[in-house]
Amino acid sequence: MSQPPATAAVLIIGDEILSGRTADTNLNTIARFLSALGVDLKEARTVGDLPAQIIATLNALRASHDYVFTTGGIGPTHDDMTADCVAEAFGVPLLDHPEAVAILERRYGSDFNAARRRMARIPAGGTLIANPVTDAPGFQIGNVFVMAGVPRIMTAMLEDVAPRLRHGQVVLARTVRVTGVGEGAVAAILGDMARARTDLSFGSYPFGAGSDGEIGTNLVIRGRDTEAVNAAVEALRAQLAAAGIETMLPQ
Amino acid sequence: MSQPPATAAVLIIGDEILSGRTADTNLNTIARFLSALGVDLKEARTVGDLPAQIIATLNALRASHDYVFTTGGIGPTHDDMTADCVAEAFGVPLLDHPEAVAILERRYGSDFNAARRRMARIPAGGTLIANPVTDAPGFQIGNVFVMAGVPRIMTAMLEDVAPRLRHGQVVLARTVRVTGVGEGAVAAILGDMARARTDLSFGSYPFGAGSDGEIGTNLVIRGRDTEAVNAAVEALRAQLAAAGIETMLPQ
Repeated sequence: MSQPPATAAVLIIGDEILSGRTADTNLNTIARFLSALGVDLKEARTVGDLPAQIIATLNALRASHDYVFTTGGIGPTHDDMTADCVAEAFGVPLLDHPEAVAILERRYGSDFNAARRRMARIPAGGTLIANPVTDAPGFQIGNVFVMAGVPRIMTAMLEDVAPRLRHGQVVLARTVRVTGVGEGAVAAILGDMARARTDLSFGSYPFGAGSDGEIGTNLVIRGRDTEAVNAAVEALRAQLAAAGIETMLPQ
Repeated sequence: MSQPPATAAVLIIGDEILSGRTADTNLNTIARFLSALGVDLKEARTVGDLPAQIIATLNALRASHDYVFTTGGIGPTHDDMTADCVAEAFGVPLLDHPEAVAILERRYGSDFNAARRRMARIPAGGTLIANPVTDAPGFQIGNVFVMAGVPRIMTAMLEDVAPRLRHGQVVLARTVRVTGVGEGAVAAILGDMARARTDLSFGSYPFGAGSDGEIGTNLVIRGRDTEAVNAAVEALRAQLAAAGIETMLPQ
């Protein structure tokens, strides 16, 4: 491989997430999107509608990752302050973007009022991200991708983001499922293998342990080298079988 | 009110969240729990299973908030490293906690192996958080509450956390729903009111705008003074009605 994988951070913006009113689903959507492109998501942060907090967090994240993806705060109301904060973080003016104005004029016609015009303001130097759902665009400036908070719109915007990213070798993740025993029964074998195979990553995700009867754990082996992952899966199954623990490979 | 409300941060720990394998639901559970207690959740962060990142993030959060709530990484496997990281962040040793050992011995009997014994290691000075689902306890040290990642267990642990927190005046949130017009149609009225009433917080959360036919927005007014919130709700409805925009109060 020529280059190391690109790294990314997600910034979720909105009081409604921190108050508990809304359950965020965008982080998981972006995480799966990046996994499929071979981009490594390193961290995520959620902040409220506070300009100082948004600006400081964005500047910290964009300095330490190849890409930053924000969601929320680009609508027409007073609590939509993400574009203002991004402009301030980059130290550039927030300007009416002619293409965004044209898009919104087409959509709203005579209802294109001052509030909706706010959605055409883009930090100088930014390029638009298409919104096929409600037209009002997101934007990219530098390594920052600014998207809507409404999950259906955010998801659609990712289509226009994908071609702009440096794709990497996708991480393969394979699961070895153990049922009938808890993860404490397999921890020693898994841990020994994890310490020996630092080229791969090993996770254990228990399930059950409650009212549904079945207990067990999903052991996940991840890596960018398909053959190494497959060999580790077989080695793990063999070691568990030798210890009298049956495994299966879900789908 | 004598004291300002307590502030809090959430730290979600786990590669499985950042890879997209698992969709976190714990943040929303904790956010709703804290809202009901009148504690202000100020930010949340998600990090992977990397000790340096966990330690640095925890130290940043515990220095800047009254409380920090972590989820994930306290099981028996090699990738469960939260207790080690918390001990290192606080600069204290990680010790077998006699009460935790007794709890786990009772649960596992002759299956209480070395891996499971890891779950009895608690940073010196920590106190246990009860786990009524699978017994293995969480713990509190200083202003940090360390809980399981499995949502059913994490939720149960909150019962033992609640009495340890300084409760505050709960934030009342009332919703004025506007249907048939987008949020751009109400943004000016809402924004004027938000600028005039800085004692309250105003949010706008659009819905629809897609395949389900109905569009509209939920305008949410939040504040700790019930009378002020109720008066603002009536004032907002009156102003919208004067502009020819109908509203309703959901349940």
